Amino acid sequence: MPRISEKGVQMPASPIRKLTPYADQAKKDGKKVYHLNIGQPDIATPEVMLNAIKNIDFDVWAYTPSEGTLSYRTKLAEYYNKLGYNITPSDILVTVGGSEAITIAMQTCVNEGDEIIIPEPFYANYNGFACMSNVVVKPILSHIENGFALPAIADFEKLITEKTKAIIICNPNNPTGYLYSKEELEALKELCLKYDLFLFSDEAYREFCYDGREFISPMHLDGLDENVVIMDTVSKRYSACGARLGCLITKNKEVIKSGLKFAQARLSPGMVEQIAGTAAIDTPDSYFEEVNKEYTLRRDTLVKRLNNIEGVFCPNPGGAFYVVAKFPIDDSDSFCQWMLESFENNGETVMMAPATGFYSTEGSGKNEVRMAYVLNINDLNKAMDCLEIALTQYPGRTMA
Amino acid sequence: MPRISEKGVQMPASPIRKLTPYADQAKKDGKKVYHLNIGQPDIATPEVMLNAIKNIDFDVWAYTPSEGTLSYRTKLAEYYNKLGYNITPSDILVTVGGSEAITIAMQTCVNEGDEIIIPEPFYANYNGFACMSNVVVKPILSHIENGFALPAIADFEKLITEKTKAIIICNPNNPTGYLYSKEELEALKELCLKYDLFLFSDEAYREFCYDGREFISPMHLDGLDENVVIMDTVSKRYSACGARLGCLITKNKEVIKSGLKFAQARLSPGMVEQIAGTAAIDTPDSYFEEVNKEYTLRRDTLVKRLNNIEGVFCPNPGGAFYVVAKFPIDDSDSFCQWMLESFENNGETVMMAPATGFYSTEGSGKNEVRMAYVLNINDLNKAMDCLEIALTQYPGRTMA
Repeated sequence: MPRISEKGVQMPASPIRKLTPYADQAKKDGKKVYHLNIGQPDIATPEVMLNAIKNIDFDVWAYTPSEGTLSYRTKLAEYYNKLGYNITPSDILVTVGGSEAITIAMQTCVNEGDEIIIPEPFYANYNGFACMSNVVVKPILSHIENGFALPAIADFEKLITEKTKAIIICNPNNPTGYLYSKEELEALKELCLKYDLFLFSDEAYREFCYDGREFISPMHLDGLDENVVIMDTVSKRYSACGARLGCLITKNKEVIKSGLKFAQARLSPGMVEQIAGTAAIDTPDSYFEEVNKEYTLRRDTLVKRLNNIEGVFCPNPGGAFYVVAKFPIDDSDSFCQWMLESFENNGETVMMAPATGFYSTEGSGKNEVRMAYVLNINDLNKAMDCLEIALTQYPGRTMA
Repeated sequence: MPRISEKGVQMPASPIRKLTPYADQAKKDGKKVYHLNIGQPDIATPEVMLNAIKNIDFDVWAYTPSEGTLSYRTKLAEYYNKLGYNITPSDILVTVGGSEAITIAMQTCVNEGDEIIIPEPFYANYNGFACMSNVVVKPILSHIENGFALPAIADFEKLITEKTKAIIICNPNNPTGYLYSKEELEALKELCLKYDLFLFSDEAYREFCYDGREFISPMHLDGLDENVVIMDTVSKRYSACGARLGCLITKNKEVIKSGLKFAQARLSPGMVEQIAGTAAIDTPDSYFEEVNKEYTLRRDTLVKRLNNIEGVFCPNPGGAFYVVAKFPIDDSDSFCQWMLESFENNGETVMMAPATGFYSTEGSGKNEVRMAYVLNINDLNKAMDCLEIALTQYPGRTMA
C-alpha cells in the first residue's frame, strides 16, 4: 500500500474544525448550539449580486481568462480607485477566493525555506498555505492588553534574518478585530523598505471599520509600490463566502507576471462568480451602512457583556467581526470542548474557537477565545447568558 | 525592490497561451481565426444545470463543507456507481476544478523531489502542478505510429527508481485522444502493485468514447483500491469549464484524510457550482448521445481531411475531442506562429497548439500539432481548407 507524503502528514488540520464532532454530538443530544466559532456571517448577500446569478444569460459555461475577465477587473479597479489605490485592471489577478491569492502570493514571492513574519494571533490557515509552499512562519506576539496593536518595530527587527522575505498583516485583523493605524503602517513601510521585504496585506474585512475610524491600506502609502501585495476576497464584503472569488493586487509587474503563470496552470477563476462580482460593485452604500450599523451594535453588545463577566477581559476592536477575549480558564481547548460536551443552560450552549489555534508560539492563547459576532443581538445575548453561567461552573476556572 | 521567488521564475508558462498575442494581432489585422487550439467546447451546457443556477434560492451565499456538500457528494456517488466504481460519498473530495484535484493528489501522495511517470505527450499543466509541488515529472514516450498507445511496461520499469511514487494517466487522453484498453490498465495495475505506486487517473473526458468503445477506469480493477486516485471535473462532461468544479476520488482513507486538510486550508468549493453540479447528474442520456454523435462526426471529418493532405498522418482516436497529427514541417512552434502571422486564405486562418508543449523530452513533437475539434463541421472544414493550402506554402515544409 503506497504511503502518503510527508507534507500530507505534516499539513495542519484546521483548528477551527477540531471541535466540530463535539458540536455535532451536542446537537444530536438535542442541545441548541450558538455558533460564535466561524466567520460565516448571517448577513444577506446583496440583492444585486444574487440577481446577477439568477439572470445569467449564456449557453456555454466557459473558461474565462486566467487573470479574470477584463470587465470584472475593470469594475474592481473602479472599486479600489474609489478607495484611493490608484491601480489599473492589469494590476489585478482574479483568484479562487482569498485563499488562492494567499497561495499565489507565497509561491510567487517567497523561496522555499524562507521566512514570513506574522503578528500573532493570526488567521490559522496561513499555516496551511505556508506548509504547502514550504515557507517558514515566524510569529511575533501581539498582546491583548493593548488590544493586539502592532508589535514594536524593534521586535520585528529582532526576528529579521537573511531568510526573511515578507510580512503578512491582516487588517482589520482576524482573529483580533484590531485596525492598524496610519502610524503603524508607516512604520511597517520603513521596515519593509529597509530590509527589502514584501508586505502582504490581507484586507478581507476592509469594509468593516467602526466608530468612524478610517481604513488605511499599504496601497495608500507612497514609495511602497514594489513591496505591497494585497490579498482580497468578496467573502466577507458581500457576505458571499461560498462564491470563492478573490483577487491579488500589486503594482509590482514581476509579481503579476509570475503570479499569472500559477493562475494559468489552474486555467480560470469561476465565470458565474465574476458575473456576480461585477454586479456586486454596484451594491448601494446603504447596504454597507446598515451592515456596519448592525455589526457595531453586536460588537458593543458582545464587548460590554464580556467585560461585565467577572474575570473576563475583552478589548474593543476597531474592525472586522471578531473579538479575542481573555477568560479565567486553564485551557481554552478544554473549555470550548467542555462547553459542547458537558455544559448546557436550558438546553443551550455556545461554540467558540480556542485562541490557541491562532498562535504558533507554543502555550500562547491558552486563556483566550475568539468569538465571531455573526449572530443577531438576541442570539448573541443568549450566548452570553450561557457563557456567563458556564464560566462559574467550569472545573478549570483559574480565579475566584 | 524585493525579488520574486525561484519558483516564480521557474514556473512554466502555459504553452497553449504562447501564441495568443499572434492570434490577437491576426484578429486586429482583420483575419478570421478558427480556434482549434484550446479545449473549450462550443457545446451548450445542459439546461438542467443552467436552470439550477437561475433558480437559486438562498439569502446568504455561504461556505459549504470543505469536502463538498453531502447532497452533492451523494449524487456524485450515484453517478460513479452507475459506472461501476462502487464508492461512497466519503470517498469523494469536491475540488475547485480538476486542477485542484491534481494539486491535492500530488501534494498528498508525492514527496518533494519524488518522481511521477507520465506517458507523453501529456496535458501541459501537469508540469505546472509538479513545479508547485516540487515533484519531478519523468516522461515516457508514446508514439504516433500506434496512435499513442500505452508504452511497453518494460519501458516503465526502466524509469522506476526508489523515488518513483506515482503514474499519471489521462484517459481518454488529452492531447492524443487515445482510449486505454482493459489490457493496458491491467498491465498498469500489476506494475503499480509490484512497485507500490499510486495510479492517478485523470478522467476529464470519460464521457467521450466513440465507435461503441467501452471506457475502463482503474476503479474497475480489483485489488487496486489503495493505489487509485481519480481526478475528475465537470468541465468537459457538461461543457461547464467555467464552473471550476471537480473532485478527487479514492478508497484510500489516508489520502482522503490528508487531502481534506488541504481542502480545509482553502475552506470551501463553490456553493452555486455544487447546486448546479447536483442538478447536472440528472442530465438526460439523450444529451450525451447527441454530443457524442456530434463529436464522432467531427472526429471523422477531421481525421479524414487530415489524412487526405499529402504528408500528413493522423491516428483515429477512440475518445476525448483532440487529435495529434504529424505534419511535413520543420518545427510546429514556427508553423503555428506562421499560420497566424503570415498566412491567410480568403482572410481566414487556423490557430493550433504545437505538440512541443505537451512533451517534456526536448525536441519531441516538433512535427506534431494538437487540434481540438470544438468547432462545428462547417468551420472545421473551412479550417482544414486553410491548413491544406498552408502546408503547401509554409517555407519550413520538409517533404515535397
